[in-house]
Amino acid sequence: MRVHIVGTGLIGTSLGLALRRAGVTVTLEDPSPTAAALARDLGAGDLDVPPDPDVVVIAAPPDVAAAAVAGALSRWPAAAVTDAASVKSTVLSDLAATVADQRDLSRYVGSHPMAGRERSGAVAAQVDLFDGRPWVLAPGPQAAERAVAAVARIGELVGSAVVRMTPAEHDAAVAAVSHVPQVAASLVAARLRDLPGPAVSLSGQGIRDVTRIAASDPTMWTQILAGNAPAVSIVLRALRADLDGILAALDALSDVEGDGVGARAVLARAVADGNAGHARIPGKHGSPPTAYASVVVVTPDAPGTLAKLLADVADAGVNLEDLHLEHGIGQPFGLVEIVVVPAAAEPLTAELTARGWRVHD
Amino acid sequence: MRVHIVGTGLIGTSLGLALRRAGVTVTLEDPSPTAAALARDLGAGDLDVPPDPDVVVIAAPPDVAAAAVAGALSRWPAAAVTDAASVKSTVLSDLAATVADQRDLSRYVGSHPMAGRERSGAVAAQVDLFDGRPWVLAPGPQAAERAVAAVARIGELVGSAVVRMTPAEHDAAVAAVSHVPQVAASLVAARLRDLPGPAVSLSGQGIRDVTRIAASDPTMWTQILAGNAPAVSIVLRALRADLDGILAALDALSDVEGDGVGARAVLARAVADGNAGHARIPGKHGSPPTAYASVVVVTPDAPGTLAKLLADVADAGVNLEDLHLEHGIGQPFGLVEIVVVPAAAEPLTAELTARGWRVHD
Repeated sequence: MRVHIVGTGLIGTSLGLALRRAGVTVTLEDPSPTAAALARDLGAGDLDVPPDPDVVVIAAPPDVAAAAVAGALSRWPAAAVTDAASVKSTVLSDLAATVADQRDLSRYVGSHPMAGRERSGAVAAQVDLFDGRPWVLAPGPQAAERAVAAVARIGELVGSAVVRMTPAEHDAAVAAVSHVPQVAASLVAARLRDLPGPAVSLSGQGIRDVTRIAASDPTMWTQILAGNAPAVSIVLRALRADLDGILAALDALSDVEGDGVGARAVLARAVADGNAGHARIPGKHGSPPTAYASVVVVTPDAPGTLAKLLADVADAGVNLEDLHLEHGIGQPFGLVEIVVVPAAAEPLTAELTARGWRVHD
Repeated sequence: MRVHIVGTGLIGTSLGLALRRAGVTVTLEDPSPTAAALARDLGAGDLDVPPDPDVVVIAAPPDVAAAAVAGALSRWPAAAVTDAASVKSTVLSDLAATVADQRDLSRYVGSHPMAGRERSGAVAAQVDLFDGRPWVLAPGPQAAERAVAAVARIGELVGSAVVRMTPAEHDAAVAAVSHVPQVAASLVAARLRDLPGPAVSLSGQGIRDVTRIAASDPTMWTQILAGNAPAVSIVLRALRADLDGILAALDALSDVEGDGVGARAVLARAVADGNAGHARIPGKHGSPPTAYASVVVVTPDAPGTLAKLLADVADAGVNLEDLHLEHGIGQPFGLVEIVVVPAAAEPLTAELTARGWRVHD
């Protein structure tokens, strides 16, 4: 298999590294000769422009993806062509409006490898960037199965879990699981701007988790939200309808004359609906969610303490499912929450207590 | 100091344990004799009803707090009385409407110890539940400084960071840092209910963080939101105004005839405002936020791997500021993100690489 990658930023360079690891012949190009040379020097592929690659991957910014795909379809008349933009419907519709020969659309299959980092560029590339991450294949109605299979093979070769859906399904999915959570985190965090300092100091783990992604880059997110505006709008409008219900309930409860019976039911329903949605998020390894148990340990905040604790957890023969750290304010210690399968909680508590840890299950 | 605790659930029993650890004489009562006896057997205090305690703590459910405070003020005419309800203005106004002698209000000082667990009841009590957590003192306008000082002493004795604010300030603060984040998490999670399975399977760390607290108890949160309805409503309405701006921008961008220039600025501003609010959340130990660096390690998902890794981190002389685990789907390994001070990232990467770990900084 011969793969040609156009665009040697984080995604293109990581893809080159991962494909070469899998024994694929990779060639690279980039509008910037310096960027292309860096990717080559990192081992992502050669800089020759091949006469007949099997697959061409456009790893360019979303706003130029459609034009680059159109160019590739005409330059390599036998190749399957894919792109890596995080929104799929707009690329397909822009492409259909651009491409000279509509039959070329049979060779285009959009991709969304769901891997990324805070850092960008070839220097941030990682051979294992795609390992275990979803790789969405979003073929349009005109895509040929042969092209779909060729692009799917790319995702498999770099270790991703390949998921096939239509461009519209993809865009609706990422609106709900990625774009709307980003908007919600930003909106909640924005409310802290004008809050008095002592009030902000009451922030606990809950708001930290809810707003962690509010630290994301505004320019990148403007491109993403703008590129998926219709799908994001549908989910946000449904969210706003629920929000309006909550506001009406809060108004009824603020009215000292009312009894608020129906209003309380609205609030309880909103939280219960959140329970139901949250329960659908898969557990690790793509398996269905499991109810886990937590063992909480109070530790001094000293170098090596956590390592010692986790060595004791391993000695106890217990596999750790997840781990959360929480630090008290104004105190030199922390709480470590060790998440394990329920059957392991009691023996682990006993074992850690015997080893001198301050444990609560 | 003699402290009498009314209500021996999680908070009352933990408080008894923590105060006795500090050498305070503690007595307990509860409407349920069984619950009171359990708390006594756990070592939280004696069951005598004292003639003249210095401080009475009402650790009862929020909807009965005001009545219990009024009862205590009349039963013990010299004691300072506090409660532990998570919303303060309604307790104070209900109390003012209930208490026979308004002069008694000088002895009432509301508290909100910001500690809790998923589990409830005396069996879940912990002597260190309040260690390092904020303890908000929210005296009303009629509270005497003597009573404020006595209640503050309780918070200090159990190891909390005591913060003083008015009941209205408290309620506005928890609306923004706790109640609105809960509503937002529930609203985002609720959008997953009707999403197709393959779409939900694209969930990554972002939505997991945003919706973690969406798993919270609907009954408890209905009480909290209803008890703080006016303050929550103010913050939620401000959030909705921002949301409406985003929806208008998305509509403008969905219009294929428009150029969306102003609309993109609205989106960028919303994300930037989130950046600014997020940056105000204090770092661990109540210190100002620091920019940390991440070192990412790809690990096999085997018992003991994480312990070995963290032992190597400790050997490198590096203090771990935080830790995040992420698991790939369909792959038996995980990503460990080690958060350290920026100066430690490069030496840590070198050290861990030398020890055979697959590391990225």
